[in-house]
Amino acid sequence: MADPQRTGASADLAALGEFGLIDAVSAFLTQGSDVLLGPGDDAALVRVGGGADGREVLVSTDAAVEGRHFRRDWSSAEDVGHRVAAANLSDLAAMGGTTTALVVAIAAPGDLPTQWALDLTRGMADEAATVGASIVGGDVVESDRLTLAVTALGACAGAVVTRGGARPGDVVALVGRLGWAEAGLSVLSRGFRSPRVVVEAHRRPEPPYAEGPAAAAAGATAMIDVSDGLLADLGHVAVASGVAIDVTRASFSVPEPLQAVGAALGVNPLNLILHGGEDHALVATFPEEAAVQAGWTVVGQVAEGEGVTVDGAPPEDDAAPRHYR
Amino acid sequence: MADPQRTGASADLAALGEFGLIDAVSAFLTQGSDVLLGPGDDAALVRVGGGADGREVLVSTDAAVEGRHFRRDWSSAEDVGHRVAAANLSDLAAMGGTTTALVVAIAAPGDLPTQWALDLTRGMADEAATVGASIVGGDVVESDRLTLAVTALGACAGAVVTRGGARPGDVVALVGRLGWAEAGLSVLSRGFRSPRVVVEAHRRPEPPYAEGPAAAAAGATAMIDVSDGLLADLGHVAVASGVAIDVTRASFSVPEPLQAVGAALGVNPLNLILHGGEDHALVATFPEEAAVQAGWTVVGQVAEGEGVTVDGAPPEDDAAPRHYR
Repeated sequence: MADPQRTGASADLAALGEFGLIDAVSAFLTQGSDVLLGPGDDAALVRVGGGADGREVLVSTDAAVEGRHFRRDWSSAEDVGHRVAAANLSDLAAMGGTTTALVVAIAAPGDLPTQWALDLTRGMADEAATVGASIVGGDVVESDRLTLAVTALGACAGAVVTRGGARPGDVVALVGRLGWAEAGLSVLSRGFRSPRVVVEAHRRPEPPYAEGPAAAAAGATAMIDVSDGLLADLGHVAVASGVAIDVTRASFSVPEPLQAVGAALGVNPLNLILHGGEDHALVATFPEEAAVQAGWTVVGQVAEGEGVTVDGAPPEDDAAPRHYR
Repeated sequence: MADPQRTGASADLAALGEFGLIDAVSAFLTQGSDVLLGPGDDAALVRVGGGADGREVLVSTDAAVEGRHFRRDWSSAEDVGHRVAAANLSDLAAMGGTTTALVVAIAAPGDLPTQWALDLTRGMADEAATVGASIVGGDVVESDRLTLAVTALGACAGAVVTRGGARPGDVVALVGRLGWAEAGLSVLSRGFRSPRVVVEAHRRPEPPYAEGPAAAAAGATAMIDVSDGLLADLGHVAVASGVAIDVTRASFSVPEPLQAVGAALGVNPLNLILHGGEDHALVATFPEEAAVQAGWTVVGQVAEGEGVTVDGAPPEDDAAPRHYR
């Protein structure tokens, strides 16, 4: 059977990468009339219940694999629960939405301590409760590799904010921490446990959930949560919007804990800020600086063109290549 | 920190089992006012968007692990896609609902052929299309163990049918195949590839999706899809409804392929029917036989009491114990 994807598709996932696979899949998936926004953004938007009186529902799913996304010796079960829930809650916030419910699929070895599974669930439930969401269901299956897949449902009060609405002349603004979780991960991976604040930031990110709907109400034209790293995620916005984005290095102050980690590990702390993911900061574009709310920092500008630059030049990318994570 | 679950909880998941974990978790999860039906049924029912004008959305999630739920040498990627999608679509059908959208999280080794992932997705999309649903999003992460987690969103035209509404005097009726997928799995696991029809039934179940909403409209009082086996799943209904259920052995005819498999493997084909899961037949209770639609078969009765019996006696359970699957 001839397949339009066969020719030219990379032979395996490691070569193709997550985004390559999503692009390839999206190319042949057909979307029903109830799908208002399909794959490719932080969440999809679906009209559930059919017809014009159907309700618009946001949905997003994220998987986490032990040894790759979390380690039981680095994070408590409750920490892991907070973290995997945060990734989903933040995806919906980045659309300007709020999460109502989570479901979780757990693939776990038979010798997983029951207490670990209970604590994991409690962590997820506690994180969900910060936005008023509940864990409403799940599935538990046996696997030799502990794997969690969390799906969030929610809605927007107004129109969703996608990655694709940035326009030349918009300003780029940011709320939340950058580089802290990455600094924590770097510290842990070298066998240290301090600075405590960055280790904690890795274990339990504190995404600014409420700022997503607030930015939507304030007229944000595009938004994304920073999970792959600021420059990478702004790259998604640039592609989806068909624009160029320039980030201004001087707009970032480097917090003391990141300076300490940078000095200890011999890395430029600004690279932690520009490339570090998983703090789930929100970055959005606004038509004018006056629309940027208190608490946000303007960090760049949108222009005609393509790609992401830092102070007008291509970023020095010292981040390790990440096929999919 | 004292934990109410710590005392008495089995030490690990293998001892506790899927249902034990779900019970333990459900005991401490709190559900927000937007949760109309929480964990413990085929799907949860959530009011998304807040307030009285929120829309009621059904959601269900299911995970499948390579080597445990599917094998790449036994099923094509498209087969696996059909099968994992069917499990979710069937869960919503068993509530009387119809699926609008699926999201899928894929944890896959880097050497997974791209074509396999594309074919998997195509299989899921084709199965979803049989009920008018679309795949609207997903996540791809790296793992040494290929794991799929599919979540379905949908809605009911009327009230949902739970597991908990069966009443003494109701009749139990069934639509769809039983034992075929189990027979196919038994054949494959012994190194055979025939009878072809049962192998195909394992690879691509054909759940009677439309019968779920039809049964709801006809007044079904309780419903479940048969994924763990008829007696096991009726056991869930009996517990949730606080009733006893008796199944009549003579109501089942044994199709020729199951007779052939039974003879070849030395098993009683009726046990395939009573214990075999994953054909995703629908079994429901109705207040009277007149409410049972064409195509359904009456297979038992609901009475006061508890537990599931076959012809009035405890079932001979020769099925292997299944902790979680």
